[in-house]
Amino acid sequence: MEVTQRRVSIRGVRPQVDCGRFPAKRSVGEPIDVEADILADSHDLIGAVVLWRPAGADDWDEASMELVANDRWRGTVEADEPGRYEFTIRAWIDRFATWQRDMAKRVDAGVSTEIDLQVGAEIIAAAMNNSTEAAAKDALQRAHDALLDDSQPVPRRADEALSEELAELVSANDDRRFATTFDRTLEIRVDRERARFSSWYEFFPRSAAPEPGRHGTFDDAIARLPYVASMGFDVVYLPPIHPIGKTHRKGPNNVTEAGPDDPGSPWAIGSSEGGHKSVHPELGTLEDFDRFVAAADEHGLEVALDIAFQCSPDHPWVSEHPEWFKERPDGSIQYAENPPKKYQDIYPLNFESDDAEGLWTELKSVFEFWIDRGVTIFRVDNPHTKSFPFWQWCLDELTREHPDTIFLSEAFTRPKVMYELAKVGFTQSYTYFAWRNRKWEIEQYYNELHRTEVADFFRPNSWPNTPDILTEFLQYGGRAAFVQKLILAATLTANYGIYGPPFELMLDEARPGAEEYVDNEKYEVKHWDLAQPDSLREMIARVNRIRSENPALQQDREFTFHHVDNEELLAFSKATRDKSNVVLVVVNLDPNWKQAGTTWLDMEALGLEPDSQFQVHDRIGESRYLWHGPSNYVELDPHVTPGHIFVVRDIHRTERDFPTF
Amino acid sequence: MEVTQRRVSIRGVRPQVDCGRFPAKRSVGEPIDVEADILADSHDLIGAVVLWRPAGADDWDEASMELVANDRWRGTVEADEPGRYEFTIRAWIDRFATWQRDMAKRVDAGVSTEIDLQVGAEIIAAAMNNSTEAAAKDALQRAHDALLDDSQPVPRRADEALSEELAELVSANDDRRFATTFDRTLEIRVDRERARFSSWYEFFPRSAAPEPGRHGTFDDAIARLPYVASMGFDVVYLPPIHPIGKTHRKGPNNVTEAGPDDPGSPWAIGSSEGGHKSVHPELGTLEDFDRFVAAADEHGLEVALDIAFQCSPDHPWVSEHPEWFKERPDGSIQYAENPPKKYQDIYPLNFESDDAEGLWTELKSVFEFWIDRGVTIFRVDNPHTKSFPFWQWCLDELTREHPDTIFLSEAFTRPKVMYELAKVGFTQSYTYFAWRNRKWEIEQYYNELHRTEVADFFRPNSWPNTPDILTEFLQYGGRAAFVQKLILAATLTANYGIYGPPFELMLDEARPGAEEYVDNEKYEVKHWDLAQPDSLREMIARVNRIRSENPALQQDREFTFHHVDNEELLAFSKATRDKSNVVLVVVNLDPNWKQAGTTWLDMEALGLEPDSQFQVHDRIGESRYLWHGPSNYVELDPHVTPGHIFVVRDIHRTERDFPTF
Repeated sequence: MEVTQRRVSIRGVRPQVDCGRFPAKRSVGEPIDVEADILADSHDLIGAVVLWRPAGADDWDEASMELVANDRWRGTVEADEPGRYEFTIRAWIDRFATWQRDMAKRVDAGVSTEIDLQVGAEIIAAAMNNSTEAAAKDALQRAHDALLDDSQPVPRRADEALSEELAELVSANDDRRFATTFDRTLEIRVDRERARFSSWYEFFPRSAAPEPGRHGTFDDAIARLPYVASMGFDVVYLPPIHPIGKTHRKGPNNVTEAGPDDPGSPWAIGSSEGGHKSVHPELGTLEDFDRFVAAADEHGLEVALDIAFQCSPDHPWVSEHPEWFKERPDGSIQYAENPPKKYQDIYPLNFESDDAEGLWTELKSVFEFWIDRGVTIFRVDNPHTKSFPFWQWCLDELTREHPDTIFLSEAFTRPKVMYELAKVGFTQSYTYFAWRNRKWEIEQYYNELHRTEVADFFRPNSWPNTPDILTEFLQYGGRAAFVQKLILAATLTANYGIYGPPFELMLDEARPGAEEYVDNEKYEVKHWDLAQPDSLREMIARVNRIRSENPALQQDREFTFHHVDNEELLAFSKATRDKSNVVLVVVNLDPNWKQAGTTWLDMEALGLEPDSQFQVHDRIGESRYLWHGPSNYVELDPHVTPGHIFVVRDIHRTERDFPTF
Repeated sequence: MEVTQRRVSIRGVRPQVDCGRFPAKRSVGEPIDVEADILADSHDLIGAVVLWRPAGADDWDEASMELVANDRWRGTVEADEPGRYEFTIRAWIDRFATWQRDMAKRVDAGVSTEIDLQVGAEIIAAAMNNSTEAAAKDALQRAHDALLDDSQPVPRRADEALSEELAELVSANDDRRFATTFDRTLEIRVDRERARFSSWYEFFPRSAAPEPGRHGTFDDAIARLPYVASMGFDVVYLPPIHPIGKTHRKGPNNVTEAGPDDPGSPWAIGSSEGGHKSVHPELGTLEDFDRFVAAADEHGLEVALDIAFQCSPDHPWVSEHPEWFKERPDGSIQYAENPPKKYQDIYPLNFESDDAEGLWTELKSVFEFWIDRGVTIFRVDNPHTKSFPFWQWCLDELTREHPDTIFLSEAFTRPKVMYELAKVGFTQSYTYFAWRNRKWEIEQYYNELHRTEVADFFRPNSWPNTPDILTEFLQYGGRAAFVQKLILAATLTANYGIYGPPFELMLDEARPGAEEYVDNEKYEVKHWDLAQPDSLREMIARVNRIRSENPALQQDREFTFHHVDNEELLAFSKATRDKSNVVLVVVNLDPNWKQAGTTWLDMEALGLEPDSQFQVHDRIGESRYLWHGPSNYVELDPHVTPGHIFVVRDIHRTERDFPTF
């Protein structure tokens, strides 16, 4: 019989991912709200704290919790450094607060008695005995004695004991008798700021040569960096840089027979020249790559490498570790298949291998190899075709040893699989952004990402295009479609990226019937005319500048859609928690026609009183409008202004008591 | 380094209350759906089963799970007997199903090869080696050999290996290599049917004397049973039957000074005549009570006792166990208070007592005392003023020892406290039913109760009135209001009850400004004229008969609100899972005026094709209407027909292919 005098229950603790099986994700500098339902029988008042510490530390820090509403409590903590943290919650009956509340009512009703005061004095005495500090002990002793000093009338003594100061003094020395501690310690992984806010630019270094016809090198890629930096990006992401397989190499447009001069796909990794820890000789040497990383750093850019755990038939692992691949009954190695299609240029790794330990260790060492060369960000190709327990182990180990490393999951697959990868440890995740075109589907999707518990483990990264994706919307929407998708990607989520130069050059020709580029750069060396006069380069630079100037756009937690009475007009706002920076985005989703409508703004989300006058200042076109209250007219011509990124300024409150003469 | 070759993840398992901290609730004969998100990397097919057994049994039963949609899987189990059960989930890569799927595509595309067949033969051979049954071994051997018999062409052999029979045979003998078992065993408490479906009638036995002015006895209560049974109830619930305290006894209308002949409140329990294990002498003896229980049983009624864990100052526990109460500084015992109000006739028990173990044991023994006298149902008064851990222990012990016992929680307090009591073990719970009058609030509330995970632990019991509650709606709505609330209570939830005779006699006079009966029976012996001509007795009998004839109304899981374009008209349906019984309720919420509107029915919830013709047969007024499709006209005059309880009959499907000559 396990008897307890504890009376407080702690339920529904947040953040908590899958009942605590996975850490929740937050970032440095972000206030971390911890919430719980905290209940006790009867009507006594409750005291509660968040206990919080770096994982494995001996002592807890405390943050007090306050009742929000309906038995929901909240406390806020913060972390200065990346790493693992842990928290739990402790709550107890606050006897002195309960006594003060009841006493105040008795005093009001004129029914306070000497005995009521004695009850309070007993609680103070208990705190006094519990106190270890002389000053506190003295102060409590004085309060105790004053309460029992019968030279003063009862109501007067009661009144004096109702002070906030005394409440704090007793609370600070309370023994928290019969306190309940939540039955689990939950974990939060705090990442550095770039995990939350990043702007990615992807390009193929082999297409970076200034003259046509030549295979680009790391030196050419270095020369491309000022261009990338001038657009305001902070992550430069390269497709795989490893030696490319020759057996079954694919030719232009993915034909199965490559010509002798076809460069092959960088995702068919490995040749006699090396595997995942080597660089493709035509790009240069490892030392050239090191110079590229250093040059990027000088331009304020971090390098993200693409890690694709798959092998060409020529990869050294195939001969050195055949046990890491699936063997067919004829002794050959199983190539990739999506029956009836065969991908004979790719051998998948077998996570059911008898030597899973050797395989896991080697794969992890690939990341370590590049981390040792200064790479801090990885974009992982098709992580959903590698086992989830492997990722959980690998990312857990790597982020403990290198808490600054960021991993972006490139999984365009079923939603729960994408979420599982985020849970097991990916820092950021690709999204369905490219295929969300209608207002209702954008609202539904980003409400799910930003406003449900998905936001505790999944950090969305929005890409309008990739080497694999050229949507019909971009194929047929012209410049307006590109600008609209740019604005949305850069504001719906704090993390976004583009695949350039095809994006800024508005390349829109697809393989017929497919949502893919024709003559795809994946299979060819390209030459891009960056000086093309209609390039979106300036627009991109402007949007990235707006992002860097407005902290509201550097986070996804304070996010609200606003109603507009036109299905082609989308409106949403982001704000800092203190509402010192509020951004309202209004976009015309129709790339063809002018659209107009009336907003119905959620004024509270904008930090405004319901009837405020306020200025909205479009940082794209620099136009300004004076708006009033929730309903305001908007009109967007996609050929002139596909969207506004408004900074909201509360110019003054409506003067309610202005004389009406 | 914990390496695993397991590749399947099991997430979001339901039912699961508070991450498995509490058992989910189901009842005998109810299909129990077990659901989970089951995922693996890549594109292999998955096999999954629910493992299910009585708690503590050695072996698991298995129920296969099927993919529903979006990686959600479902399996269904059932329990024949009340008790504790436990379940978990096991899932694995189904290699043979995957092979069959891929092979079918290769055959279709004409690209199947001998090696593909050898891969299949290897999987069959593994099952064969794993098989313990000679017949299965033989059949697998034959299938294996046939697959490798190169006298037949590859596509023909492939085709033969794609049969469902072979799939089942291999699956039954599969070794489920690298299977994942969900990391928790979850519990389900299966209660008997009455936990799910019950009709309660509350009355004060002391008011049951046939002549006015006399204190009723158990014998008078026995004489009242045919009346109760004639209305179709199955639970007869008595307020506390224990000796009533004399110190600070309350008089009529709760005045603090009782006259010498005032009977006092039955909730002020205990006197020199005994406490919670004694009966009030004016009602009779324990043997009289036993006869009452036996007589009720003869009428198909179960007796529910009211257990109120609180004491009058005269209760034997006060002198025998002063340590179970809170002592004030002057040595007196702390009475109940809601400052500035004092309830000096009631001493609350102190769950922070140093002798909590003695207190818990004694309280549990109160239930056991009455269980031993044949009581199977308890209505627990104000459980939210007793500690939650006590209830969790007490109800857990009692339901393990007496799995047929039902406990109804009388907590009208904050929603999360009511839910907590249900989680810690109460079988049924009072609800906010009495105060939910508007359509939107009824829809919101019952959707929360029936269609969210609340339904996994909270069984609602709807009461339109109690000795403590006479709502303004009943005070001013006349007969229509009583009938409307009767229909709603009896159909919104499978468990409901009324406090009679005030309900059927439509007593509507309240203490001014309060939602309470004036001259409350709690403080007086009453005499009721049951033969009053406008009594609702017949209507109640009819409603209870409809409940007993329609299994759809005996459960709350298959429940759907339907749109009606009039805010005064509420429509909802309940159905058996196989839709063999479908009931549609339409109620006019306005007790004053005739209301009309058009339905927009969810045809699927009614088990109907979108354009079906169907009959709705009102089992209250026996009117019948032929309806067609989702939109149908309804009109309800509250003075004639406050509501319909329609049985839905699908008379025939629309003949789509009737010749159009």
